[in-house]
Amino acid sequence: CVMRGAIIITSSGCFWYCIVCNSVFIYVSAQSGVGDSVLSAFRSICGEDGVSLGEAVREQHGKDESVHRCCPPDVVVFPRCVEEVSALAKVCHKHRLPIIPFGTGTGLEGGVGAVKVRCLCGHTFSHLEQLTSLVTTITNPGADASLCGMAATSASGTNAVRYGTMRENVINLEVVLADGSIVHTAGKDRRPRKTSAGYNLTNLFVGSEGTLGIITKTTLRLYGIPEAMVSAVCSFPSVQAAVDSTVQTLQAGVPIARIEFLDDVMIDACNRFSSLSYPVTPTLFLEFHGSEQSLEEQVKTTVPFLGTNTKEGKKKKVYYSVRGLSCWADVILHTACSAYSTDVCVPLSRLPQIIVETKEDLIENRLTGEKLSNFLLLKNVFASCRRALAMDGTCTGEHGVGLGKRALLCEEMGPVGIQVMQSLKDALDPNNLMNPGKILQREEP
Amino acid sequence: CVMRGAIIITSSGCFWYCIVCNSVFIYVSAQSGVGDSVLSAFRSICGEDGVSLGEAVREQHGKDESVHRCCPPDVVVFPRCVEEVSALAKVCHKHRLPIIPFGTGTGLEGGVGAVKVRCLCGHTFSHLEQLTSLVTTITNPGADASLCGMAATSASGTNAVRYGTMRENVINLEVVLADGSIVHTAGKDRRPRKTSAGYNLTNLFVGSEGTLGIITKTTLRLYGIPEAMVSAVCSFPSVQAAVDSTVQTLQAGVPIARIEFLDDVMIDACNRFSSLSYPVTPTLFLEFHGSEQSLEEQVKTTVPFLGTNTKEGKKKKVYYSVRGLSCWADVILHTACSAYSTDVCVPLSRLPQIIVETKEDLIENRLTGEKLSNFLLLKNVFASCRRALAMDGTCTGEHGVGLGKRALLCEEMGPVGIQVMQSLKDALDPNNLMNPGKILQREEP
Repeated sequence: CVMRGAIIITSSGCFWYCIVCNSVFIYVSAQSGVGDSVLSAFRSICGEDGVSLGEAVREQHGKDESVHRCCPPDVVVFPRCVEEVSALAKVCHKHRLPIIPFGTGTGLEGGVGAVKVRCLCGHTFSHLEQLTSLVTTITNPGADASLCGMAATSASGTNAVRYGTMRENVINLEVVLADGSIVHTAGKDRRPRKTSAGYNLTNLFVGSEGTLGIITKTTLRLYGIPEAMVSAVCSFPSVQAAVDSTVQTLQAGVPIARIEFLDDVMIDACNRFSSLSYPVTPTLFLEFHGSEQSLEEQVKTTVPFLGTNTKEGKKKKVYYSVRGLSCWADVILHTACSAYSTDVCVPLSRLPQIIVETKEDLIENRLTGEKLSNFLLLKNVFASCRRALAMDGTCTGEHGVGLGKRALLCEEMGPVGIQVMQSLKDALDPNNLMNPGKILQREEP
Repeated sequence: CVMRGAIIITSSGCFWYCIVCNSVFIYVSAQSGVGDSVLSAFRSICGEDGVSLGEAVREQHGKDESVHRCCPPDVVVFPRCVEEVSALAKVCHKHRLPIIPFGTGTGLEGGVGAVKVRCLCGHTFSHLEQLTSLVTTITNPGADASLCGMAATSASGTNAVRYGTMRENVINLEVVLADGSIVHTAGKDRRPRKTSAGYNLTNLFVGSEGTLGIITKTTLRLYGIPEAMVSAVCSFPSVQAAVDSTVQTLQAGVPIARIEFLDDVMIDACNRFSSLSYPVTPTLFLEFHGSEQSLEEQVKTTVPFLGTNTKEGKKKKVYYSVRGLSCWADVILHTACSAYSTDVCVPLSRLPQIIVETKEDLIENRLTGEKLSNFLLLKNVFASCRRALAMDGTCTGEHGVGLGKRALLCEEMGPVGIQVMQSLKDALDPNNLMNPGKILQREEP
């Protein structure tokens, strides 16, 4: 689909406006008995070419990258602007046709399954990187997600350690509500970095996974490309040693940009995929951002922690290479194809315990390997999540709830928390048309 | 009132649990005709000594530090724990008695006026500083606000430049809802720094100003005390020059901790109050946090921007003193006693324009002076806010809406945005018992 958008460079940074692109997927309920009238309504909004019933296209958008089964929409339409999305939503609202906003289908928890309407806000992370001299270091998604989709799922990535997640970096959202009305969560065209003007609507929609509205425009806070970057790869004698170093480094307040853990199994895959020769032991990949001078200092502060894990006084090898992280990314990408990728988060203090326990669990169950906060599991996902919950953590740090973790969300939030979420859903989507059945299991008030 | 609370030091930082203290103010409606039964219900919950009708106490809590008129409650009660707050809320809910959570009464927009019930979550910013070796650098409130009050109003302070506001630093909240039920916005006892588990309830309640519930416990992210701090005071030939330097410094990505602007009038007051001898010209007070080495670098990066404003090649005087900021704080404190203190925010790119225009406005109206984002005005507050709105800014960056800015909020958000906020309010507080009439003007659905 043709991408359209605008970048506005301001003295306070670069603000990216992700304009809705011209692909929206609409489901016409077979039972609704209004198929033809709805179709012609769609055509009158988007034109003849704007409505498609092609099976291939529908199949193509029937699922995300999760293991959840494909549920293709019946019809595809292509609006050209937010006003057309709004008009389409009004038609769906009138005929009680559910709606599911859809980014680029890179979700990992089945958030787009059982689709009705989908709204592709097509600008992706890589478009953003291409189009601006600044880089949105808020996240570095494994997949090339759409920006509005990233907002809808409260996405984050390996850079979140330093720059935060979408929650901290979305300044304003344009959202088409269930009744077709358009709301700007921080007021139209506003972009103050700090506000206490009423309820925080922006962060209510960030992470709502399309269950409260269709995000058609995202205003992001971006960060300048650092003067210099350095990556480090460090091998450890044990999982415990690697994780202890991670905790010490973060406690020391080093403004580290990335710190990722791979166990021996993943390192082995790493070596095979990218013909590298890393020692096949638990390994940390680190990345530092800043000025030349501050990089020196960051590395100087960090190296001792990496050293403290030396066995028999053997000195740790700390060398700098961007290949460290890129090869790792390749591996994750390759592995993910045949893996159930999910994530949990725990307080830093519980990190060593959960990693070690999970590793034991993996060996016990003969699973392939793990990455920090992103376990590559074919099964036992619930067990991992419950382990995190038992450690005061969360069942999902960045992938969202979707279909896959609705039961776990109940365990995490408790009945009152779920009830509060349900009443918010009922307030903004009384007919349960927006991505029904996601996040919350109860479909009707 | 007796403070109670706990500090839990974790390897991921210090988490402060602000336990509700034993003072709650309850209003018994004269018209409700249930005065006596309600009073005895209160006494059965909090004991005889736990219910007071004393005029002095009521007057004392009739207003915050704003210019809004005093509206004392009729009765004061003193619960001893969150369960008692919950029980009190249930009684109020049964008898349809409105409730207003109350921190330490340091609000600046009349957020606690027309009181019904008040809940003092008594632990304050200074208690926190006394009780932990870490410092909550999220904010440095002019007044010694309560932590739960700061969460309720999405407070921030001079440190927000570097560490963010309460929005970025509250991890979990315990909230008593209108019906008396208790919700933990991130799940009970959970403290993950990152989560995408359902709707972001934490940030819905942060800044809700008590209109959605009574915050009884706050889990905060804290930051270590920096290895070193340095403050700088820099005089400028003009307001424009001072503000230009501010913009350049922030654009350069210097991780500056504080940067505050005082005009010549305020500097004069500064000198008089603290018998100092700063040049009576527009002046910037800066503070840098970090390691000795990074401080050097930060200052080295910043000084040229301060220098670029030199007229006739006169070298800027940059000297370090913590007195710079402390004396300034004194002045604000003193001045605030007889001032209408409010705040707005605009995108950084519009900062020079709004400061210069406001300064002209002040001179024209013979007003005393101004501080960056915190205009000391006896009048023309609306004019200043509308100026900010016209520059894509917000009518309140940290003081909230309260009574004072409800009309401005409508202008800022537009009708759909207000409607969305109202439906959230109606969903969580259908009887409009929680701090009615604040933020939103419409009291009934």
